[in-house]
Amino acid sequence: MNEPARDARHRVERSKARARYDRDSVHAILDAGMLAHVGFCQGAQPFVIPMLYARDGDTIVLHGSVASRLMRELGDGIPASLCVTLVDGLVLARSHFDHSVNYRSVVAFGRARVLADPVAKTAALARFVDALIPGRAAESRPADASELGATTVLVFEIEDASAKVRDGGAKENAADLALPYWAGVLPQRSVFDAPRPQPDLVAGVDLPDSVRNLLAREGATR
Amino acid sequence: MNEPARDARHRVERSKARARYDRDSVHAILDAGMLAHVGFCQGAQPFVIPMLYARDGDTIVLHGSVASRLMRELGDGIPASLCVTLVDGLVLARSHFDHSVNYRSVVAFGRARVLADPVAKTAALARFVDALIPGRAAESRPADASELGATTVLVFEIEDASAKVRDGGAKENAADLALPYWAGVLPQRSVFDAPRPQPDLVAGVDLPDSVRNLLAREGATR
Repeated sequence: MNEPARDARHRVERSKARARYDRDSVHAILDAGMLAHVGFCQGAQPFVIPMLYARDGDTIVLHGSVASRLMRELGDGIPASLCVTLVDGLVLARSHFDHSVNYRSVVAFGRARVLADPVAKTAALARFVDALIPGRAAESRPADASELGATTVLVFEIEDASAKVRDGGAKENAADLALPYWAGVLPQRSVFDAPRPQPDLVAGVDLPDSVRNLLAREGATR
Repeated sequence: MNEPARDARHRVERSKARARYDRDSVHAILDAGMLAHVGFCQGAQPFVIPMLYARDGDTIVLHGSVASRLMRELGDGIPASLCVTLVDGLVLARSHFDHSVNYRSVVAFGRARVLADPVAKTAALARFVDALIPGRAAESRPADASELGATTVLVFEIEDASAKVRDGGAKENAADLALPYWAGVLPQRSVFDAPRPQPDLVAGVDLPDSVRNLLAREGATR
Protein backbone atom coordinates (compact mmCIF):
# COMPACT_ATOMS: atom_id res chain seq x y z
CA MET A 1 0.00 0.00 0.00
CA ASN A 2 1.23 3.51 -0.70
CA GLU A 3 2.22 6.01 1.92
CA PRO A 4 -0.87 7.86 3.16
CA ALA A 5 -1.48 11.55 2.45
CA ARG A 6 0.56 14.04 4.44
CA ASP A 7 -2.22 14.84 6.90
CA ALA A 8 -3.59 11.30 7.26
CA ARG A 9 -4.09 10.29 10.88
CA HIS A 10 -2.36 6.92 10.41
CA ARG A 11 0.68 8.24 8.58
CA VAL A 12 3.93 7.38 10.38
CA GLU A 13 5.83 10.63 10.88
CA ARG A 14 9.03 9.42 12.52
CA SER A 15 11.40 6.61 11.43
CA LYS A 16 9.47 6.18 8.19
CA ALA A 17 11.64 3.27 7.12
CA ARG A 18 9.93 1.27 9.87
CA ALA A 19 6.43 1.96 8.58
CA ARG A 20 4.19 -0.59 6.84
CA TYR A 21 0.77 0.15 5.47
CA ASP A 22 -0.11 -3.15 3.80
CA ARG A 23 -2.91 -5.29 5.15
CA ASP A 24 -0.73 -8.39 5.61
CA SER A 25 1.77 -6.58 7.85
CA VAL A 26 -1.01 -5.10 9.96
CA HIS A 27 -2.87 -8.41 10.26
CA ALA A 28 0.26 -10.40 11.14
CA ILE A 29 0.97 -8.14 14.13
CA LEU A 30 -2.66 -8.11 15.25
CA ASP A 31 -2.73 -11.91 15.07
CA ALA A 32 0.47 -12.24 17.10
CA GLY A 33 -0.89 -10.11 19.95
CA MET A 34 -3.84 -10.49 22.27
CA LEU A 35 -3.85 -7.22 24.22
CA ALA A 36 -4.87 -3.88 22.70
CA HIS A 37 -4.87 -0.42 24.21
CA VAL A 38 -8.05 1.31 23.12
CA GLY A 39 -8.38 5.07 23.22
CA PHE A 40 -11.34 7.39 22.99
CA CYS A 41 -12.19 10.95 24.00
CA GLN A 42 -14.78 12.37 26.33
CA GLY A 43 -14.58 16.00 25.39
CA ALA A 44 -10.88 16.84 25.50
CA GLN A 45 -10.18 14.04 28.01
CA PRO A 46 -8.55 10.95 26.51
CA PHE A 47 -9.04 7.48 28.00
CA VAL A 48 -6.75 4.54 27.25
CA ILE A 49 -8.00 1.14 28.34
CA PRO A 50 -6.35 -2.29 28.00
CA MET A 51 -8.63 -4.82 26.31
CA LEU A 52 -8.31 -8.32 24.95
CA TYR A 53 -9.21 -8.58 21.28
CA ALA A 54 -9.61 -10.99 18.39
CA ARG A 55 -9.16 -10.01 14.76
CA ASP A 56 -11.93 -11.01 12.33
CA GLY A 57 -11.05 -9.94 8.80
CA ASP A 58 -10.73 -6.16 8.76
CA THR A 59 -12.49 -5.86 12.10
CA ILE A 60 -11.29 -6.23 15.66
CA VAL A 61 -13.70 -7.80 18.11
CA LEU A 62 -13.77 -6.47 21.67
CA HIS A 63 -15.97 -7.41 24.59
CA GLY A 64 -16.88 -6.36 28.08
CA SER A 65 -19.66 -6.08 30.59
CA VAL A 66 -23.00 -4.57 29.52
CA ALA A 67 -22.70 -2.49 32.70
CA SER A 68 -19.45 -0.92 31.52
CA ARG A 69 -19.60 2.79 30.84
CA LEU A 70 -16.64 2.43 28.49
CA MET A 71 -18.33 -0.24 26.42
CA ARG A 72 -21.38 1.96 26.10
CA GLU A 73 -19.30 4.95 24.99
CA LEU A 74 -17.37 2.90 22.46
CA GLY A 75 -20.51 1.15 21.25
CA ASP A 76 -22.03 4.54 20.43
CA GLY A 77 -19.63 4.67 17.50
CA ILE A 78 -17.43 7.54 18.66
CA PRO A 79 -13.99 7.83 16.99
CA ALA A 80 -11.64 5.29 18.56
CA SER A 81 -8.00 4.35 18.25
CA LEU A 82 -6.48 1.00 19.03
CA CYS A 83 -2.83 0.12 19.47
CA VAL A 84 -1.14 -3.28 19.74
CA THR A 85 2.55 -3.41 20.62
CA LEU A 86 4.83 -6.43 20.89
CA VAL A 87 8.31 -5.95 22.33
CA ASP A 88 10.95 -8.20 20.77
CA GLY A 89 14.11 -7.06 22.49
CA LEU A 90 16.24 -4.38 24.09
CA VAL A 91 18.80 -2.64 21.91
CA LEU A 92 21.95 -1.51 23.74
CA ALA A 93 24.22 1.03 22.09
CA ARG A 94 27.52 2.63 22.99
CA SER A 95 25.67 5.93 23.51
CA HIS A 96 22.62 6.57 25.71
CA PHE A 97 20.98 8.20 22.70
CA ASP A 98 21.08 5.13 20.46
CA HIS A 99 19.54 2.75 22.98
CA SER A 100 16.27 1.44 21.64
CA VAL A 101 13.78 -1.38 21.64
CA ASN A 102 12.87 -3.84 18.93
CA TYR A 103 9.13 -3.98 18.51
CA ARG A 104 6.18 -4.53 16.23
CA SER A 105 3.19 -2.24 16.61
CA VAL A 106 -0.07 -1.42 14.93
CA VAL A 107 -2.08 1.76 15.33
CA ALA A 108 -5.62 1.48 13.99
CA PHE A 109 -8.34 4.09 13.69
CA GLY A 110 -12.03 3.36 13.39
CA ARG A 111 -15.30 3.09 15.20
CA ALA A 112 -17.00 0.30 17.08
CA ARG A 113 -20.56 -0.95 16.81
CA VAL A 114 -22.47 -3.26 19.10
CA LEU A 115 -22.98 -6.82 17.89
CA ALA A 116 -26.51 -7.62 18.99
CA ASP A 117 -27.40 -10.87 17.25
CA PRO A 118 -27.14 -13.70 19.82
CA VAL A 119 -25.81 -16.26 17.33
CA ALA A 120 -23.09 -13.87 16.14
CA LYS A 121 -22.30 -12.93 19.76
CA THR A 122 -21.93 -16.57 20.78
CA ALA A 123 -19.58 -17.12 17.85
CA ALA A 124 -17.61 -13.98 18.73
CA LEU A 125 -17.09 -15.14 22.31
CA ALA A 126 -15.90 -18.54 21.05
CA ARG A 127 -13.51 -16.74 18.70
CA PHE A 128 -12.21 -14.79 21.67
CA VAL A 129 -11.39 -17.97 23.55
CA ASP A 130 -9.68 -19.41 20.47
CA ALA A 131 -7.72 -16.19 19.98
CA LEU A 132 -6.30 -16.58 23.49
CA ILE A 133 -5.71 -20.34 23.17
CA PRO A 134 -6.22 -21.88 19.71
CA GLY A 135 -8.60 -24.84 19.88
CA ARG A 136 -9.82 -24.03 23.36
CA ALA A 137 -13.39 -23.04 22.46
CA ALA A 138 -14.24 -26.66 21.58
CA GLU A 139 -12.98 -27.78 24.98
CA SER A 140 -15.23 -25.55 27.09
CA ARG A 141 -18.88 -24.60 27.41
CA PRO A 142 -20.24 -21.90 25.03
CA ALA A 143 -21.93 -18.84 26.50
CA ASP A 144 -25.53 -19.34 27.61
CA ALA A 145 -28.36 -16.81 27.29
CA SER A 146 -27.66 -15.19 30.64
CA GLU A 147 -23.93 -14.79 29.90
CA LEU A 148 -24.74 -13.36 26.46
CA GLY A 149 -27.07 -10.89 28.13
CA ALA A 150 -24.31 -9.80 30.49
CA THR A 151 -21.78 -9.25 27.70
CA THR A 152 -21.40 -6.48 25.17
CA VAL A 153 -19.52 -7.50 22.03
CA LEU A 154 -18.12 -4.64 19.97
CA VAL A 155 -16.95 -4.85 16.37
CA PHE A 156 -14.27 -2.25 15.69
CA GLU A 157 -14.07 -1.54 11.96
CA ILE A 158 -10.52 -0.68 10.93
CA GLU A 159 -10.76 2.44 8.76
CA ASP A 160 -7.05 3.30 8.68
CA ALA A 161 -4.09 1.44 10.11
CA SER A 162 -0.33 1.50 10.06
CA ALA A 163 2.28 -0.89 11.37
CA LYS A 164 5.74 -0.06 12.59
CA VAL A 165 8.56 -2.55 12.97
CA ARG A 166 12.00 -2.04 14.44
CA ASP A 167 14.42 -4.94 14.34
CA GLY A 168 18.12 -5.64 14.13
CA GLY A 169 21.01 -4.22 16.09
CA ALA A 170 21.98 -0.77 17.30
CA LYS A 171 22.20 2.06 14.76
CA GLU A 172 25.24 4.04 15.88
CA ASN A 173 27.46 6.90 14.79
CA ALA A 174 30.78 5.86 13.31
CA ALA A 175 32.58 7.87 16.00
CA ASP A 176 31.00 5.77 18.75
CA LEU A 177 32.25 2.47 17.38
CA ALA A 178 35.67 3.07 18.93
CA LEU A 179 34.20 3.38 22.45
CA PRO A 180 35.09 0.48 24.75
CA TYR A 181 31.45 -0.30 25.55
CA TRP A 182 29.38 -3.35 24.82
CA ALA A 183 26.51 -2.97 22.35
CA GLY A 184 24.02 -5.44 21.00
CA VAL A 185 20.54 -6.86 21.33
CA LEU A 186 18.84 -8.70 24.18
CA PRO A 187 16.06 -10.64 22.44
CA GLN A 188 12.93 -10.76 24.55
CA ARG A 189 9.87 -13.00 24.31
CA SER A 190 6.96 -14.19 26.36
CA VAL A 191 6.92 -17.77 27.65
CA PHE A 192 4.52 -19.90 29.66
CA ASP A 193 5.42 -21.59 32.91
CA ALA A 194 3.96 -24.92 34.01
CA PRO A 195 0.12 -24.94 33.97
CA ARG A 196 -1.61 -24.67 37.35
CA PRO A 197 -4.82 -26.72 37.26
CA GLN A 198 -7.83 -25.64 39.31
CA PRO A 199 -7.91 -27.80 42.46
CA ASP A 200 -11.47 -28.98 41.77
CA LEU A 201 -11.23 -30.57 38.33
CA VAL A 202 -13.40 -33.61 37.62
CA ALA A 203 -11.34 -36.74 38.27
CA GLY A 204 -9.42 -37.96 35.23
CA VAL A 205 -9.46 -34.63 33.34
CA ASP A 206 -6.05 -34.16 31.74
CA LEU A 207 -4.27 -31.16 30.27
CA PRO A 208 -6.16 -30.54 26.99
CA ASP A 209 -4.73 -30.50 23.48
CA SER A 210 -5.10 -26.72 23.20
CA VAL A 211 -2.75 -26.16 26.13
CA ARG A 212 -0.33 -28.88 25.05
CA ASN A 213 -0.13 -27.33 21.58
CA LEU A 214 0.38 -23.84 22.96
CA LEU A 215 3.19 -25.00 25.22
CA ALA A 216 4.79 -26.92 22.36
CA ARG A 217 4.78 -23.88 20.09
CA GLU A 218 8.36 -22.73 20.30
CA GLY A 219 9.12 -19.06 20.55
CA ALA A 220 5.55 -17.97 20.93
CA THR A 221 5.49 -14.23 21.57
CA ARG A 222 2.21 -12.93 22.91
CA MET B 1 -6.30 5.51 49.49
CA ASN B 2 -10.10 5.75 49.44
CA GLU B 3 -12.23 4.98 46.45
CA PRO B 4 -12.49 8.06 44.22
CA ALA B 5 -15.74 9.98 43.81
CA ARG B 6 -18.41 8.41 41.63
CA ASP B 7 -17.64 10.54 38.60
CA ALA B 8 -13.83 10.58 38.95
CA ARG B 9 -12.07 9.78 35.69
CA HIS B 10 -9.75 7.23 37.33
CA ARG B 11 -12.43 5.36 39.27
CA VAL B 12 -12.53 1.67 38.37
CA GLU B 13 -16.10 0.86 37.39
CA ARG B 14 -15.93 -2.87 36.76
CA SER B 15 -14.47 -5.64 38.97
CA LYS B 16 -13.94 -3.16 41.78
CA ALA B 17 -12.30 -5.78 43.96
CA ARG B 18 -9.33 -5.61 41.56
CA ALA B 19 -8.88 -1.86 41.95
CA ARG B 20 -6.06 -0.20 43.89
CA TYR B 21 -5.65 3.53 44.36
CA ASP B 22 -2.64 3.68 46.66
CA ARG B 23 0.61 5.18 45.46
CA ASP B 24 2.69 2.07 46.22
CA SER B 25 0.52 -0.19 44.08
CA VAL B 26 0.60 2.26 41.19
CA HIS B 27 4.36 2.79 41.44
CA ALA B 28 5.14 -0.94 41.71
CA ILE B 29 3.37 -1.63 38.41
CA LEU B 30 4.92 1.38 36.68
CA ASP B 31 8.35 0.24 37.86
CA ALA B 32 7.81 -3.30 36.60
CA GLY B 33 6.92 -2.13 33.09
CA MET B 34 8.78 -0.18 30.44
CA LEU B 35 6.18 0.38 27.72
CA ALA B 36 3.26 2.77 28.10
CA HIS B 37 0.40 3.50 25.74
CA VAL B 38 -0.17 7.22 25.74
CA GLY B 39 -3.46 8.71 24.60
CA PHE B 40 -4.49 12.22 23.66
CA CYS B 41 -7.22 13.88 21.61
CA GLN B 42 -7.10 16.09 18.55
CA GLY B 43 -10.65 17.33 18.54
CA ALA B 44 -12.79 14.21 18.87
CA GLN B 45 -10.06 12.01 17.37
CA PRO B 46 -8.13 9.92 19.90
CA PHE B 47 -4.54 8.84 19.32
CA VAL B 48 -2.86 6.01 21.21
CA ILE B 49 0.91 5.75 20.85
CA PRO B 50 3.34 3.22 22.38
CA MET B 51 6.19 4.94 24.25
CA LEU B 52 8.99 3.88 26.53
CA TYR B 53 8.90 5.56 29.91
CA ALA B 54 10.71 5.91 33.22
CA ARG B 55 8.99 6.78 36.49
CA ASP B 56 10.49 9.61 38.54
CA GLY B 57 8.54 10.09 41.78
CA ASP B 58 4.99 11.03 40.84
CA THR B 59 6.00 11.85 37.32
CA ILE B 60 6.53 9.71 34.25
CA VAL B 61 9.30 10.73 31.90
CA LEU B 62 8.76 10.29 28.16
CA HIS B 63 10.98 11.22 25.26
CA GLY B 64 11.00 11.43 21.52
CA SER B 65 12.25 13.38 18.55
CA VAL B 66 11.94 17.16 18.56
CA ALA B 67 10.51 16.73 15.05
CA SER B 68 7.65 14.60 16.34
CA ARG B 69 4.22 16.14 15.98
CA LEU B 70 2.99 13.96 18.85
CA MET B 71 5.70 15.18 21.21
CA ARG B 72 4.78 18.77 20.37
CA GLU B 73 1.09 18.14 21.01
CA LEU B 74 1.77 16.37 24.30
CA GLY B 75 4.31 18.97 25.34
CA ASP B 76 1.68 21.67 24.95
CA GLY B 77 0.11 20.32 28.12
CA ILE B 78 -3.11 18.95 26.65
CA PRO B 79 -4.96 16.37 28.76
CA ALA B 80 -3.28 13.00 28.37
CA SER B 81 -3.84 9.47 29.57
CA LEU B 82 -1.23 6.80 29.98
CA CYS B 83 -1.73 3.08 30.46
CA VAL B 84 0.78 0.37 31.41
CA THR B 85 -0.34 -3.26 31.28
CA LEU B 86 1.59 -6.38 32.25
CA VAL B 87 0.11 -9.78 31.39
CA ASP B 88 0.86 -12.48 33.95
CA GLY B 89 -1.06 -15.44 32.59
CA LEU B 90 -4.01 -16.91 30.75
CA VAL B 91 -6.96 -18.11 32.83
CA LEU B 92 -8.83 -21.08 31.37
CA ALA B 93 -12.30 -21.89 32.68
CA ARG B 94 -14.83 -24.61 32.01
CA SER B 95 -17.04 -21.99 30.30
CA HIS B 96 -16.08 -19.60 27.50
CA PHE B 97 -17.48 -16.79 29.62
CA ASP B 98 -15.15 -17.29 32.58
CA HIS B 99 -11.94 -17.32 30.53
CA SER B 100 -9.76 -14.40 31.54
CA VAL B 101 -6.24 -13.06 31.83
CA ASN B 102 -4.16 -12.33 34.90
CA TYR B 103 -2.69 -8.86 34.64
CA ARG B 104 -1.50 -5.75 36.40
CA SER B 105 -2.38 -2.41 34.89
CA VAL B 106 -2.20 1.28 35.67
CA VAL B 107 -4.25 4.03 34.08
CA ALA B 108 -2.90 7.49 34.80
CA PHE B 109 -4.30 10.90 33.89
CA GLY B 110 -2.31 14.07 33.71
CA ARG B 111 -0.50 16.51 31.49
CA ALA B 112 3.01 16.63 30.13
CA ARG B 113 5.44 19.53 30.08
CA VAL B 114 8.68 19.91 28.17
CA LEU B 115 11.87 19.51 30.17
CA ALA B 116 14.14 22.17 28.70
CA ASP B 117 17.11 22.39 31.06
CA PRO B 118 20.06 20.57 29.41
CA VAL B 119 21.41 19.17 32.70
CA ALA B 120 18.00 17.81 33.68
CA LYS B 121 17.51 16.45 30.15
CA THR B 122 20.85 14.65 30.22
CA ALA B 123 19.93 13.10 33.56
CA ALA B 124 16.49 12.11 32.25
CA LEU B 125 18.02 10.31 29.27
CA ALA B 126 20.41 8.47 31.59
CA ARG B 127 17.44 7.50 33.76
CA PHE B 128 15.74 6.15 30.66
CA VAL B 129 18.65 3.89 29.87
CA ASP B 130 18.75 2.68 33.48
CA ALA B 131 14.99 2.08 33.44
CA LEU B 132 15.46 -0.25 30.49
CA ILE B 133 18.59 -1.94 31.87
CA PRO B 134 19.55 -1.07 35.46
CA GLY B 135 23.16 0.08 35.67
CA ARG B 136 23.52 0.53 31.94
CA ALA B 137 23.81 4.33 31.88
CA ALA B 138 27.25 4.18 33.53
CA GLU B 139 28.42 1.76 30.82
CA SER B 140 27.66 3.98 27.83
CA ARG B 141 28.20 7.51 26.62
CA PRO B 142 25.84 10.26 27.90
CA ALA B 143 23.96 12.38 25.40
CA ASP B 144 25.96 15.20 23.82
CA ALA B 145 24.67 18.66 22.91
CA SER B 146 23.56 17.66 19.45
CA GLU B 147 21.67 14.62 20.74
CA LEU B 148 20.03 16.71 23.45
CA GLY B 149 18.96 19.19 20.83
CA ALA B 150 17.36 16.42 18.78
CA THR B 151 15.42 15.04 21.74
CA THR B 152 12.30 16.27 23.48
CA VAL B 153 11.94 15.07 27.05
CA LEU B 154 8.45 15.28 28.51
CA VAL B 155 7.54 15.10 32.18
CA PHE B 156 4.06 13.70 32.61
CA GLU B 157 2.65 14.73 35.99
CA ILE B 158 0.34 12.06 37.39
CA GLU B 159 -2.80 13.86 38.56
CA ASP B 160 -4.99 10.78 39.09
CA ALA B 161 -4.16 7.12 38.74
CA SER B 162 -5.64 3.75 39.46
CA ALA B 163 -4.21 0.27 39.33
CA LYS B 164 -6.05 -2.93 38.58
CA VAL B 165 -4.78 -6.41 39.39
CA ARG B 166 -6.28 -9.76 38.51
CA ASP B 167 -4.58 -12.86 39.81
CA GLY B 168 -5.38 -16.40 40.88
CA GLY B 169 -7.42 -19.10 39.18
CA ALA B 170 -10.69 -19.16 37.28
CA LYS B 171 -13.79 -17.78 38.98
CA GLU B 172 -16.53 -20.19 37.96
CA ASN B 173 -20.18 -20.99 38.63
CA ALA B 174 -20.75 -23.95 40.92
CA ALA B 175 -22.77 -25.65 38.18
CA ASP B 176 -19.77 -25.62 35.83
CA LEU B 177 -17.48 -27.46 38.22
CA ALA B 178 -19.04 -30.78 37.21
CA LEU B 179 -18.15 -30.29 33.53
CA PRO B 180 -15.43 -32.65 32.26
CA TYR B 181 -13.20 -29.80 31.06
CA TRP B 182 -9.76 -28.72 32.18
CA ALA B 183 -9.48 -25.35 33.90
CA GLY B 184 -6.54 -23.53 35.37
CA VAL B 185 -3.88 -20.91 34.81
CA LEU B 186 -1.04 -20.73 32.29
CA PRO B 187 1.45 -18.37 33.94
CA GLN B 188 3.14 -16.11 31.41
CA ARG B 189 6.28 -14.00 31.67
CA SER B 190 8.84 -12.27 29.53
CA VAL B 191 12.32 -13.73 29.23
CA PHE B 192 15.52 -12.79 27.46
CA ASP B 193 17.30 -15.01 24.99
CA ALA B 194 21.07 -15.06 24.57
CA PRO B 195 22.54 -11.58 23.92
CA ARG B 196 23.56 -10.81 20.33
CA PRO B 197 26.63 -8.54 20.36
CA GLN B 198 27.14 -6.00 17.58
CA PRO B 199 29.71 -7.46 15.16
CA ASP B 200 31.99 -4.42 15.49
CA LEU B 201 32.72 -4.26 19.23
CA VAL B 202 36.17 -3.09 20.29
CA ALA B 203 38.34 -6.15 20.87
CA GLY B 204 38.16 -7.49 24.42
CA VAL B 205 34.83 -5.86 25.34
CA ASP B 206 32.83 -8.38 27.34
CA LEU B 207 29.17 -8.63 28.25
CA PRO B 208 28.73 -5.87 30.87
CA ASP B 209 27.50 -6.24 34.44
CA SER B 210 24.16 -4.58 33.64
CA VAL B 211 23.31 -7.30 31.14
CA ARG B 212 24.65 -10.10 33.32
CA ASN B 213 22.53 -8.87 36.22
CA LEU B 214 19.43 -8.54 34.08
CA LEU B 215 19.82 -12.07 32.75
CA ALA B 216 20.42 -13.39 36.26
CA ARG B 217 17.24 -11.79 37.59
CA GLU B 218 14.90 -14.74 37.67
CA GLY B 219 11.30 -14.32 36.66
CA ALA B 220 11.66 -10.79 35.36
CA THR B 221 8.40 -9.72 33.76
CA ARG B 222 8.70 -6.66 31.54
